[in-house]
Amino acid sequence: MESPTLQPDRNVPPATVPFGSTPEERIVQRHSVELFGNGKPLELAGGRTLGPITVVYETYGQLNEACDNAIYVCHALTGDSHAAGRYQLDDRKPGWWDDFIGPGCGLDTDRYCVICANVLGGCQGTTGPSSIDPQTGKPFGLNFPFLTVADIVKVHRELVAHLGIEKLAGLVGGSLGGMQVLEWMAQTPESVRNAIVLASAANLSAQGIAFNAVGRRAIYADPKFRNGEYYDVDPTDSPSGETSSGQVLNKPGSGPRFGLALARMIAHITYLSESSIEKKFGRRLQDSDELAFDLMRETEFQIESYLHYQGKQFVDRFDANSYLYLTKAMDYFDLAESHGSLRKALERTTARVLVASYTTDWLFPTSQSREIVSSLLSAGCHASFCELESAYGHDAFLIDIPQLTELVRAFLNE
Amino acid sequence: MESPTLQPDRNVPPATVPFGSTPEERIVQRHSVELFGNGKPLELAGGRTLGPITVVYETYGQLNEACDNAIYVCHALTGDSHAAGRYQLDDRKPGWWDDFIGPGCGLDTDRYCVICANVLGGCQGTTGPSSIDPQTGKPFGLNFPFLTVADIVKVHRELVAHLGIEKLAGLVGGSLGGMQVLEWMAQTPESVRNAIVLASAANLSAQGIAFNAVGRRAIYADPKFRNGEYYDVDPTDSPSGETSSGQVLNKPGSGPRFGLALARMIAHITYLSESSIEKKFGRRLQDSDELAFDLMRETEFQIESYLHYQGKQFVDRFDANSYLYLTKAMDYFDLAESHGSLRKALERTTARVLVASYTTDWLFPTSQSREIVSSLLSAGCHASFCELESAYGHDAFLIDIPQLTELVRAFLNE
Repeated sequence: MESPTLQPDRNVPPATVPFGSTPEERIVQRHSVELFGNGKPLELAGGRTLGPITVVYETYGQLNEACDNAIYVCHALTGDSHAAGRYQLDDRKPGWWDDFIGPGCGLDTDRYCVICANVLGGCQGTTGPSSIDPQTGKPFGLNFPFLTVADIVKVHRELVAHLGIEKLAGLVGGSLGGMQVLEWMAQTPESVRNAIVLASAANLSAQGIAFNAVGRRAIYADPKFRNGEYYDVDPTDSPSGETSSGQVLNKPGSGPRFGLALARMIAHITYLSESSIEKKFGRRLQDSDELAFDLMRETEFQIESYLHYQGKQFVDRFDANSYLYLTKAMDYFDLAESHGSLRKALERTTARVLVASYTTDWLFPTSQSREIVSSLLSAGCHASFCELESAYGHDAFLIDIPQLTELVRAFLNE
Repeated sequence: MESPTLQPDRNVPPATVPFGSTPEERIVQRHSVELFGNGKPLELAGGRTLGPITVVYETYGQLNEACDNAIYVCHALTGDSHAAGRYQLDDRKPGWWDDFIGPGCGLDTDRYCVICANVLGGCQGTTGPSSIDPQTGKPFGLNFPFLTVADIVKVHRELVAHLGIEKLAGLVGGSLGGMQVLEWMAQTPESVRNAIVLASAANLSAQGIAFNAVGRRAIYADPKFRNGEYYDVDPTDSPSGETSSGQVLNKPGSGPRFGLALARMIAHITYLSESSIEKKFGRRLQDSDELAFDLMRETEFQIESYLHYQGKQFVDRFDANSYLYLTKAMDYFDLAESHGSLRKALERTTARVLVASYTTDWLFPTSQSREIVSSLLSAGCHASFCELESAYGHDAFLIDIPQLTELVRAFLNE
């Protein structure tokens, strides 16, 4: 993960820089703003307050004078504000939705100003458990207040207001990001013109709760977790046999690396379809043509090696406490429960809504998308639904960009 | 887990006791036999030898004089030899397939003598990693030789020969048990009259390997694992915050309880269908009507509490090292790879074969059962196939007994 210099955002919103197609035109900056300060902290759903809250965000494309061409992107569980472009020309990887954001892309930066902020509780700049608690001068750790998707959305909305935007031209998100879109429509039904919910649901299924629970347990079980107070531990200490990330203290990379990697490995299986990993890896071996008959060889099959790689990559960029808080927020999300019914939650929305699911997504199956669409239609709202063919399972909204582009472009142009 | 006195099996096979319907008629005993002794050790697929090997088994019903009415049951990953009946009248639970074995049942003990043995590498009496290594006088631990499904089957076959049985009337197994049935048919094609393969496959899928890998990693990561040498540790030491099982040393219950429980929790999710846990637990809370907004409450949702319970129960009866060895054997199983092709592996079988899958089993999907049937049919073998409707996912073969009884009874009577 590259760490660009943060641009403090004082008076003038930075959403005035164009975003293009050439590498030079796709250089972006992270911006930072302090919200909920001046004695007006955020009142959280769990009853506690939090403030000030630093929010880190990026923009792609130019906000027009009427401030009515903004599309807000809500990222998924382990995403961040870096949705497109590069910080420097030689960055190895661009933002996570780079193919989807740009001139003529699904989110067309010639027409729209696309905004993406790291979520509350995250670990890429926005206030979260690894941030310094002003009351103690130390990282919050597990003293960070419990947070919900509703709280995350309130912070997003405050950022949008800060940028001078009254009504969003578009609001889009996949998975946990889609939950934020739904929650946003329920909180302020008239604040969005077009909403797009991808590979998501109005609540997390029992199976989803189960997988989150075992992931968290992997973190709790790691002796380096130390009840969440691991930030002052030198990561070069090579915890649990992992190689050091070389990152500085109080940054993602320290702490329960082994447990967090295992949590990621478990979750990663659920993001892929059975058919895609069968095709991509099958039973092929990683480093040999022959079986080793060695119990302790942990990366003998390619699928094992792949999962280990994913786990290691993840712990270099993500904070274990953030993983705990955000998966729990996901577990808690239940739009029907918090509003009486799903219809009640959504019936006041004036947005046009597009809901899309993926054929091989077994974590957020199509039935859950249909439930959202049914509620919208029964309330007389505008709702379009599409089940997209894809081999990539839940991750398809991050991978299968061409068909998503076609769908979203048609929806926004309609 | 009740621990009955073992009945050493010297000369006379014990398969002469009837098995009935009343509680008194369903009292069973575990028997023990030593095989591969006298300098004739088992040659394992991995190249090492092992012997003597203790095999613990049970029988239900009487073997006839011709010894041609035996049905051999191959248990699944975490099963054992206790397939039916009780050791004592007041045992809390009967054997794991109790409803399926008895007079007039799917496996009819009025007609057949049903035999079930704990697998090689297991932890319920048959020689495994927790057994004493005669060379050192200490438990094998990770010095136990690598084993495969082929090795497991060779031990089963030796037991069958020891009991004086030349040809089995029936051979049946689900999941890893079904893999043993397939391997058995490949090893000795004429040794079985009727073979039944339930919820199984000719090899483990990439997704299956992935879930086994994360389960093993949970065990490796537990500091109490100690590279498999945990047998001499006092289990009352309350490892990883778990309550003690009170079991004696060198028995399941000591060692990496936290890691093994987590491995079981992960695996357990894969044994259930999405719809069954949605129906059974949904998003219901365990001990309250209201959300706690407490990050560290690990059993807030019923599904979480259920998984924790399953994990705790499991570590009281299973050995972590056995879990490592047996999941790895499962990963390695690939009948096509070891015989050139699936057809070559199965074409010499003279058995009538019944293959059944379950509609909601996503760990061993129907497509894998169809593959077996296609190979058998293309080789001109007798094969019947049935995809059974069930809500219970992979575990259906252990739960949905009435329809399985109907199917198996019809197949055996045909």
